[in-house]
Amino acid sequence: MRTFDCRSSTTTPVGVVDVVRWEQFGLGELLPFQAMWYSVPPGESSPRDQHPEVELSVVVSGTAHVEAGGVVTEVATGSAFLFDSCEPHVVHNHADQPLMVFSAYWTNRPDRLANVA
Amino acid sequence: MRTFDCRSSTTTPVGVVDVVRWEQFGLGELLPFQAMWYSVPPGESSPRDQHPEVELSVVVSGTAHVEAGGVVTEVATGSAFLFDSCEPHVVHNHADQPLMVFSAYWTNRPDRLANVA
Repeated sequence: MRTFDCRSSTTTPVGVVDVVRWEQFGLGELLPFQAMWYSVPPGESSPRDQHPEVELSVVVSGTAHVEAGGVVTEVATGSAFLFDSCEPHVVHNHADQPLMVFSAYWTNRPDRLANVA
Repeated sequence: MRTFDCRSSTTTPVGVVDVVRWEQFGLGELLPFQAMWYSVPPGESSPRDQHPEVELSVVVSGTAHVEAGGVVTEVATGSAFLFDSCEPHVVHNHADQPLMVFSAYWTNRPDRLANVA
């Protein structure tokens, strides 16, 4: 068993967002996805992002307001959200407490790129 | 974008543990893993489990005391733990608040079955 600490791992700033990339854990190809935690400070938003990878995110602290397709959706602690490939998105933290998200992302085979919006 | 609510989804009891299996969301093969949330009530433990799938878990509420290889390791909210294929494990909730865990699990190719213990 291995454990991974979201608070003591190496963090990379991406704008106002702090990112803990799982590449630092040296898991090679054991996971069928890449992973990260990211933190959005109170009152801030993640940079607008768009990428070929499908991305599944789980809120582990705080509440996310997730903007995609012109709609903002509230996602509570513990719940999850899924971006389709190339779907533009922004994650807002409207609260006065930190927002932390765990994300797994992967490039899907073309035949699996169903529209999940 | 799709969202998945850990609290309003269909729950299956497994002993004292409540499990929310992601099969109910009909994602087909979009995800390269299977997924679930599970909740361990205060003072309780998950059934002892062992399976061929590698399993990555993220604590989304409470604190886990994870037993594997004869060692119990505390894992705080937000942090993660990874079981190798066929590694026996039990997850204890020693606290007086609910413990909820998000888990992704998958069968790895034989050449990826590195020992991650």
